[in-house]
Amino acid sequence: MGELFYLNALWVMVATILVILMQGGFILLEAGSTRMKNAGHIAGKTIFTFGIASLVFWAVGYGFIYGQGNLFIGFSDFFYGDFTSVVDGLPGSIDFMFQLAFAGIALTIAFGGFAERAKLSVYILFAIFFSAFVYPVVAHWIWGDGWLAGLEKQDFAGSTVVHLTGAMAALAATILLKPRIGKYNKDGTANDMHGHNQVYTALGVLLLWVGWFGFNAGSTLGVDEGFFGFVALNTNLAAAAGAIAALSTAWMLSGKADVPTVLNGALAGLVAITASCAFVEPWAAVLIGLIAGVIVYYSMKFFDKAKIDDPIFALSVHGVAGVWGTLSTGFFATPELAAMNGGLPGLLYGGGLTQLGVQTLGVVSAGLYAFLTSVILLLVIRAVVGSLRVTEEEELLGLDLSEHGSYGYPEMVQPAANAQFGVHEPVVKI
Amino acid sequence: MGELFYLNALWVMVATILVILMQGGFILLEAGSTRMKNAGHIAGKTIFTFGIASLVFWAVGYGFIYGQGNLFIGFSDFFYGDFTSVVDGLPGSIDFMFQLAFAGIALTIAFGGFAERAKLSVYILFAIFFSAFVYPVVAHWIWGDGWLAGLEKQDFAGSTVVHLTGAMAALAATILLKPRIGKYNKDGTANDMHGHNQVYTALGVLLLWVGWFGFNAGSTLGVDEGFFGFVALNTNLAAAAGAIAALSTAWMLSGKADVPTVLNGALAGLVAITASCAFVEPWAAVLIGLIAGVIVYYSMKFFDKAKIDDPIFALSVHGVAGVWGTLSTGFFATPELAAMNGGLPGLLYGGGLTQLGVQTLGVVSAGLYAFLTSVILLLVIRAVVGSLRVTEEEELLGLDLSEHGSYGYPEMVQPAANAQFGVHEPVVKI
Amino acid sequence: MGELFYLNALWVMVATILVILMQGGFILLEAGSTRMKNAGHIAGKTIFTFGIASLVFWAVGYGFIYGQGNLFIGFSDFFYGDFTSVVDGLPGSIDFMFQLAFAGIALTIAFGGFAERAKLSVYILFAIFFSAFVYPVVAHWIWGDGWLAGLEKQDFAGSTVVHLTGAMAALAATILLKPRIGKYNKDGTANDMHGHNQVYTALGVLLLWVGWFGFNAGSTLGVDEGFFGFVALNTNLAAAAGAIAALSTAWMLSGKADVPTVLNGALAGLVAITASCAFVEPWAAVLIGLIAGVIVYYSMKFFDKAKIDDPIFALSVHGVAGVWGTLSTGFFATPELAAMNGGLPGLLYGGGLTQLGVQTLGVVSAGLYAFLTSVILLLVIRAVVGSLRVTEEEELLGLDLSEHGSYGYPEMVQPAANAQFGVHEPVVKI
Repeated sequence: MGELFYLNALWVMVATILVILMQGGFILLEAGSTRMKNAGHIAGKTIFTFGIASLVFWAVGYGFIYGQGNLFIGFSDFFYGDFTSVVDGLPGSIDFMFQLAFAGIALTIAFGGFAERAKLSVYILFAIFFSAFVYPVVAHWIWGDGWLAGLEKQDFAGSTVVHLTGAMAALAATILLKPRIGKYNKDGTANDMHGHNQVYTALGVLLLWVGWFGFNAGSTLGVDEGFFGFVALNTNLAAAAGAIAALSTAWMLSGKADVPTVLNGALAGLVAITASCAFVEPWAAVLIGLIAGVIVYYSMKFFDKAKIDDPIFALSVHGVAGVWGTLSTGFFATPELAAMNGGLPGLLYGGGLTQLGVQTLGVVSAGLYAFLTSVILLLVIRAVVGSLRVTEEEELLGLDLSEHGSYGYPEMVQPAANAQFGVHEPVVKI
Repeated sequence: MGELFYLNALWVMVATILVILMQGGFILLEAGSTRMKNAGHIAGKTIFTFGIASLVFWAVGYGFIYGQGNLFIGFSDFFYGDFTSVVDGLPGSIDFMFQLAFAGIALTIAFGGFAERAKLSVYILFAIFFSAFVYPVVAHWIWGDGWLAGLEKQDFAGSTVVHLTGAMAALAATILLKPRIGKYNKDGTANDMHGHNQVYTALGVLLLWVGWFGFNAGSTLGVDEGFFGFVALNTNLAAAAGAIAALSTAWMLSGKADVPTVLNGALAGLVAITASCAFVEPWAAVLIGLIAGVIVYYSMKFFDKAKIDDPIFALSVHGVAGVWGTLSTGFFATPELAAMNGGLPGLLYGGGLTQLGVQTLGVVSAGLYAFLTSVILLLVIRAVVGSLRVTEEEELLGLDLSEHGSYGYPEMVQPAANAQFGVHEPVVKI
Repeated sequence: MGELFYLNALWVMVATILVILMQGGFILLEAGSTRMKNAGHIAGKTIFTFGIASLVFWAVGYGFIYGQGNLFIGFSDFFYGDFTSVVDGLPGSIDFMFQLAFAGIALTIAFGGFAERAKLSVYILFAIFFSAFVYPVVAHWIWGDGWLAGLEKQDFAGSTVVHLTGAMAALAATILLKPRIGKYNKDGTANDMHGHNQVYTALGVLLLWVGWFGFNAGSTLGVDEGFFGFVALNTNLAAAAGAIAALSTAWMLSGKADVPTVLNGALAGLVAITASCAFVEPWAAVLIGLIAGVIVYYSMKFFDKAKIDDPIFALSVHGVAGVWGTLSTGFFATPELAAMNGGLPGLLYGGGLTQLGVQTLGVVSAGLYAFLTSVILLLVIRAVVGSLRVTEEEELLGLDLSEHGSYGYPEMVQPAANAQFGVHEPVVKI
C-alpha cells in the first residue's frame, strides 16, 4: 500500500477522533441546557448510550448500511472483524470507526427530545433500536447502495442522514413524552426553562465546532487535492455566519442577544453546511450560515408556541437547519463541485429544479421514515416498560436521584434530609 | 501534487484545528477567572466574536496581511475563494484557515482587558475593527512582506504578532474602561477579585497547552526533517518550567502557591517560547520558561499596584511574557537554527547585539501600533455608542443579565424576585 | 527521509497530543470525584505535576528507560537535546514527546491515592521521585532493554507499565495517608463521599476515551498496514462494553445504575484493552471490556470494605483492570497478532500457559516494585516534611484554602467571615 493510502487513512483516523470528541460537546450542551437536578444523569447517559451505539453498530448497524442487500437495506458484514480489508480506499477498520462515530452522533441528537423526563430503561432500549433499525436504514438509502444514492441525492456529511434523522427521532420522543412539568402554563403560554450552565453550553458548542472539522472535512475520506481544507473553510464560515445572524436576529427582534440563541445560531450554521460543504463556494457558505442563524431563531419560537417541548433545541438546530442545509445544495451547488461530488448543479447555476426535487424527496422520505419508526419503537418500548416517563414525583426530584440514586451535584442540590419522594427542598432554590 | 505536499497539508490542518480548540481554553480561562454573574456572557461572547473574526478575516484580514501591497499593508485577495491555489507550499484553503485561527486568538486575548464591564455593542464593534485594522497590519509587518520581515525579525509563531498585539489592545481597553467596581479601595490598595471556578481555569490552561502544539509546532507549516517535533518538545519544556517557576516564586515570596499564579506561569512559559521555539536548544527553552514564570508573578503584582485592572492577566501573560519571549531569541538563538529559520544567532552564541536590536524594534513598534490604534478605535466606538462601559447598576447586577437577559447560572445566581435594576440579592452570597 | 517516515512521525505526534489531552480528562475526573473545597487544588496540581514530570523525564527519566544500561535500568541520554536523531523509526524529538506523555499519565494516576488530604509539598516531592525512580524502571523492564522485554511480556500500550504502576503508587499512598475524615464510621462501615460534579466526571471520561486513541493506537508508532485503525477499533469496543457491563452489574446488584460506576466501567474497559489491543480480535476486545466492567464494580466494593480509601477509584480502574488487561493476552492473543507484536498466542489459541505465566510474572514483579519503592519514597518524604497529611483542621477546611490560600469556588464555598481554622461554615451546606 502506498503513501497516499496511508495519508487518507491518517486523515480519516484524525477525523474519527474529532467526531467522537463531539460527544463531549454534546455532554456539555445537553447538561448546560437543562437543570441541575438532572445534570449527572444527562452527562452520564451520553457515555453508556455511545457504548450501546458502538456495540450495536459493530453487531448489525454497519452491515445494515454497507452490507450486500437491496435498495432498502444492506444485509451482510455483521460483527465486523476483518482488519485486512480495504473499504472506500481506506483500511477497513478506519472506515468502520468513522462510520461508527457518525451513528453515535445521530443517537445523541435523538436523545435531545427525551431530556429531563424519560426513564433510564427507555434510554437503553431506544439506543439499541435506533442504532439498529432507524439510523442504518436512512444511511443505507443515501450513503450505501440505497435508492436515494441511486438518485444522486447530495448530502456530503449528513445534514439529512445524521442530523435530520436524529431530530425526527427527538420529535417523536418529545411528542410521546409530552412537555416537561412547568413548561406550559394553563393559558397555553410557555415558560423559559433555563439551562443551568451557559459556560458548559458555550464550551460544548466550541467542542462541536472543532469536532465538525472531522465530521465535514473528514467526509472527503482522504486528502486528494487538499479538498478537505476547502470543506473545513466552508464549515468555519457557515458556523461564524450562523452565530452572527442569530445574535443580530435575537437582539433586533427581542431586545436581548440571549446566549443560547447565539450558540444555537452557530450550531445551525454547522448543521446546514453539513450537506453542502463540498458543493458550494465560500460566499454561499456564508449565506447558508446566515439563513440558518435566522431560521433557528424563528424555529425555536415556533416549537415553543406549538407546545412541542424541545429542551435542547434539537428540532430547531438539527431538524430545521438540517432540512435547510439539505435543500441548499439545490440552490447553490456549483457545476464544478457537483461534477466532483455527485448530483447536479443548483438552481442559481442553471441546474434547474431536478436536484432540488431530489433533495426535497430525500428530506421528506428520510424524515418520515425516521419519525414513524421512532414512534413505533417508542410505542413498543412503552408497552414493554409500562411508561416512557418517570413519575411526577421523580421528575420534580430530578432524574439524578430517581434513575441513578444520587445527585450529580450533591453539595449543591439536596433533597431535604427527611425527604420522602415528593418533598423537594434543595439547598439551591430552583 | 506529491505525498509531501499532502503531508504538510495534513499537519497544518491538524494544527489549525488545535488552534481553534484554544478558543475552548480561553472560554474556560476567562469564565473561570471572573465572577458567576458574568460567566454566561464571557463564555458566549467568545463564540460570536470568533465568528466575527472569521468573517472579517475572510473579507479583508487575509488580504491586508498577505495580499500584494507595500511595507505597511497588503491590499489584494479579499473575500478568499480560490480553492485551487497553492500558498506557502500548502493548499490555499488550509493556509488560509491556519492564519484565520491565529487572528481569532489575538482577538480573544484582547478581550481579556474588557472583562466584566464592557458593553455588548463594544465587543461587536471592536471585534470588527481589531480584526480588520489592528492584527492584520502587525501580521503583515512581521509575517507578510512588511518592513520587519525585511529586517528578519524572529517571531516563529507569534509572541509579538499574536500575543503582544492582543495584550496591547487589552491594555488600551482596560485603561479606557477603568477598573471594575470594587477592585480598588479608597486608600489605593487593590482587592483580589477571585475568579469563580479554578477547575475551569486549570482545564482551560490544559486545553491551551494542548492547542499550543498546533500554534507553535504547526508554524513549521510542514513536516520537513521532523522539525515540528522539536518545536513541540521546546514548547512543552517551557510550559513545564513556567508552571514550576511560578509555583516556587509564589510560595517563597507570598507564602502560598496560589493556583491562578501557577496556571499563569504555565501560560507565560508558553507565550514566551512562542517566538523562540524554533531558534533555541531545549535547555534554553527550559530557561526561557523559568524566567517567564518568575516574570509573570512580578508583573501581576506590578499591574495591581499600578491600578491597571487586568482581570484575566492578559497584560502579564500575553504582554510581558510576549515581550520576554521575543527578546529571548536575541540571547539564545543558535547559529544553526537561525540559519534555518531566519535572522541571526543570539548574543550567547556570538551573534552580537544586532538581532536583539531588531527584536526590540519589533516589540516597540508593534506594541505601539497595536496600543495606539486600539485607543483610537475605542474612542471612535465610544463616540458612536455613548459609553464603553455598562452602567454601575448593570455591572453590579452582572453582564449576563444586563447584556443577554438571563444569568448563565440561573439556579445559582438570581436577582431578588422583585429586583428592579440595582437590587441584587443572589441565592449564593457574593 | 521518505514519506513513510513522515507519516509515522505525524501519526505519533497526533497521538502524543491526544495523550497530553488526557491530562484534561484527569483534571475533570479527579475534580468531579472529590469535594468542592478541594477542587481548585486538585485541578491546579495536575498542571504543575505534569510540569514536574516533563522536566524530570527530560533530565533523567528518558535515559533511565531507553539509555544504554543493564536489564534493570538504562543509564545514558540524559537532558535530551539531539533533534537530528532517529529513534524507533521516528524523529527523536517525537519519540521523546510520546514517551514523556505516558510518564505524565502514570504520575497523574498515582495521585488518585493522595486526593483530599496530602500536603502540597508531598505532591511536589513525590512527583520528582516517582518520575525519576518508579515509572522509568518498570518502563525499562518492559519497553526498554529490560528483563521482562527479554521474556517477551505483552503490554502493548501499558496496562502494566502505566496503569498498574500508577495504581500501585496510589495504593502505597492511600495506605500510608489513611482514609479521609468521615470515610469510615466507628462500626467500620463506609460512607459514600460523593464527588461534587458528575458532569465533570462524565466529560473527563469522554476526554480520556478520546485521548486513549492516541495512547493505544499511537503505540503502533506508525501507520504500517493501517494497523492503528484496528487498535482504535478494539479500544472503542472495549470501552463501550465496559460501560454497559458496569451499568448492568450495578443496576442488577444494587438496584441503581449509579453514574460513577458506569463511568468507571468505561475506564476499566479502556485500561484492560490497553495491554491487549494489538493482540486480540474484536470479539475478544468486547469480552475483555465486559469482564473489566464487572470486575470494577466488585473491586470498588472490595476496597471500600477493606477500609482502603480510594477517592478516585484508581486502585479499581487502573490497578485491578490493569492486571486483568495484562493477563487477558495470555488467554486471547491470536497466533497471527502475537507473531506480529511479540510473545506467544494465548491459551484459547493453543498457546499453552507460557505467555500467561510471563504476564503474571510481569504483573507481580512490576506491581511489587512500584508498590515497595513508592512506600519507601513516601517514608523518606514523611521524614523530610514531617507528615504526609494536612492537619485535621486543614482537611475540614479544604485543601484549596490550606494549600493555596483561596477556594477554587470562592462564591460557593466560603469559610465563615470570622473563621479561625476549625470553624467551617460554607454557604453551600456540605
